[in-house]
Amino acid sequence: MRTTSAAALDLGLRALLAWGVPPAAAELQVHTLVEAELRGHPSHGLARLPRVIDRIEAGVTDPKAVGSHTWTAEGALTVDGQHGLGPVVAVAALDALESRVGRTGIAYAALHSSDHLGMLSWYVERLASRGFIAIATTTSEALVHPWGGRYATQGTNPLALGIPALPEPLVVDMSTGVISMGKIHDYAARGIPLEDGWALDAAGEPTTVAHDARAGSIAPFGGAKGYALGIALEVLIASLSGSALGTDVRGTLDAVNYCTKGDIFIVIDARSTQGIGPTTDYLNSVRKSEPADPNQPILIPGDRARARRLVAAETGFDVTDETWNRLLERAG
Amino acid sequence: MRTTSAAALDLGLRALLAWGVPPAAAELQVHTLVEAELRGHPSHGLARLPRVIDRIEAGVTDPKAVGSHTWTAEGALTVDGQHGLGPVVAVAALDALESRVGRTGIAYAALHSSDHLGMLSWYVERLASRGFIAIATTTSEALVHPWGGRYATQGTNPLALGIPALPEPLVVDMSTGVISMGKIHDYAARGIPLEDGWALDAAGEPTTVAHDARAGSIAPFGGAKGYALGIALEVLIASLSGSALGTDVRGTLDAVNYCTKGDIFIVIDARSTQGIGPTTDYLNSVRKSEPADPNQPILIPGDRARARRLVAAETGFDVTDETWNRLLERAG
Repeated sequence: MRTTSAAALDLGLRALLAWGVPPAAAELQVHTLVEAELRGHPSHGLARLPRVIDRIEAGVTDPKAVGSHTWTAEGALTVDGQHGLGPVVAVAALDALESRVGRTGIAYAALHSSDHLGMLSWYVERLASRGFIAIATTTSEALVHPWGGRYATQGTNPLALGIPALPEPLVVDMSTGVISMGKIHDYAARGIPLEDGWALDAAGEPTTVAHDARAGSIAPFGGAKGYALGIALEVLIASLSGSALGTDVRGTLDAVNYCTKGDIFIVIDARSTQGIGPTTDYLNSVRKSEPADPNQPILIPGDRARARRLVAAETGFDVTDETWNRLLERAG
Repeated sequence: MRTTSAAALDLGLRALLAWGVPPAAAELQVHTLVEAELRGHPSHGLARLPRVIDRIEAGVTDPKAVGSHTWTAEGALTVDGQHGLGPVVAVAALDALESRVGRTGIAYAALHSSDHLGMLSWYVERLASRGFIAIATTTSEALVHPWGGRYATQGTNPLALGIPALPEPLVVDMSTGVISMGKIHDYAARGIPLEDGWALDAAGEPTTVAHDARAGSIAPFGGAKGYALGIALEVLIASLSGSALGTDVRGTLDAVNYCTKGDIFIVIDARSTQGIGPTTDYLNSVRKSEPADPNQPILIPGDRARARRLVAAETGFDVTDETWNRLLERAG
């Protein structure tokens, strides 16, 4: 079915309020999911909201937790998420970094024991639009196989960067897997084959059958380099946050386990640098660079998502009946 | 010809001393290049040393500069490299970060106006072996085309990460181009075709002829994601360091221009975290993960370079007669 962001926000909010989520936290949780829908990333959209409520019901998510903060050094914040909602714990951590970074220039937060963050780009874009350079990365259940391997040993471990520019920041948000498990499920549902090299089946053999890849593993993007980046992020995050590693990660895809992934945010104060003028000029020059296909102008990371958002804010977006009906049930 | 690291260090040192480089600086400069040879990265090896001397002779490199440091916040260091040698300016900056990061937990340096760093992995491995997580990135002359583009707009912008583990740290060092321009020249010299999708010619058309790619541009690695990462690093570095952007970058491949690229180092104190035990166990479990080819065990980033280094330290490595003879001339 087709819906609008206003209707989706309203229903999502009612559902979360009915399950004991405080109003501001509920608004933030639903907002991040609706923003993903508007930007064309339904894998990080409303479909995740019924699971959020399932997790609250199961007692593995605390709807009221905001995380406990410990500064281990002037620019180093450790956050015990206390099993709180991902966006709620993350925004509290980012607010703390934002207050600190005027003095230290750079600061980071290492989060453990909080739930799925949703789309990382939302966080880095928010900071970049206020004059901060932001780097965000998070682990997930092991879904990606090592380069030359047969079985999943690392998460899809996305990396996001937000860098101030005018009129809008540059925003990168990329999984280190060549494709998401959400898309593999989508291909399976639609009976479309995967491309060669995207996935292995449960026995560790290459497959283009999306149905068989669901219990297998995803290739790292960009071959050995994407593998290297993904495993480096896996251990970077766990080293600083104490989160679980590899196949021990749980709780972003189920409603029975405490969430054991970790997140790192690094924030750099770029408000006093002279960078925004040259950055803006440079990005515009790249946009004007001659494309291989005259009908496909060069895009800067973030451009496509913003263009989609503008359209979807007018025309709405699709949600499955199943998601909508489950939210209606939960809203009571 | 075949040489050893001792002979190469000796000749390189004599050549630099003859051109007014102070002994400690000369040793550091030659050491980083020889380490690249030992690790199997001749593109960042001794072949670069004659150009270092050409640049000193031309007056675009100051053999005595170590860089001027300004702390703009407690964890934020700006370095004017004063046209000094890349490794010399970088190590002085890293030493300053290392002293600071015990208090701040995280600190960064933004460098401009210093020369080519050589292999980034050397820097992050040095820090990681002392208990610090290190992130390094640097710009280069524009050699990489945007995804869907025809002409180079961004550097090869490598990203390196070093993360403490036992007995050796995890070390990633990856260009954001799918291949280096050095390798394209090597393919051209040997008359070997490039793979499809690696490069465009000077007219912006796809080519597999290495000779034609030399005046063209390199594809980003991993498609749109590698492009996004590369351009994000380009603007991240320039935003903080004030370095040049895109086609304005000069001086890492010539002996006539001041070097206008920039570098960023981020150092995080991981000495007090509990991460090294779990990280080590995890990396070992990945190494033991079943490989697709039983004769090709899974490697952790850094393993291959260290294995090569062990062998080359015994057997030596090849240098072109041209490089060796130019160094002999310069050593006088």
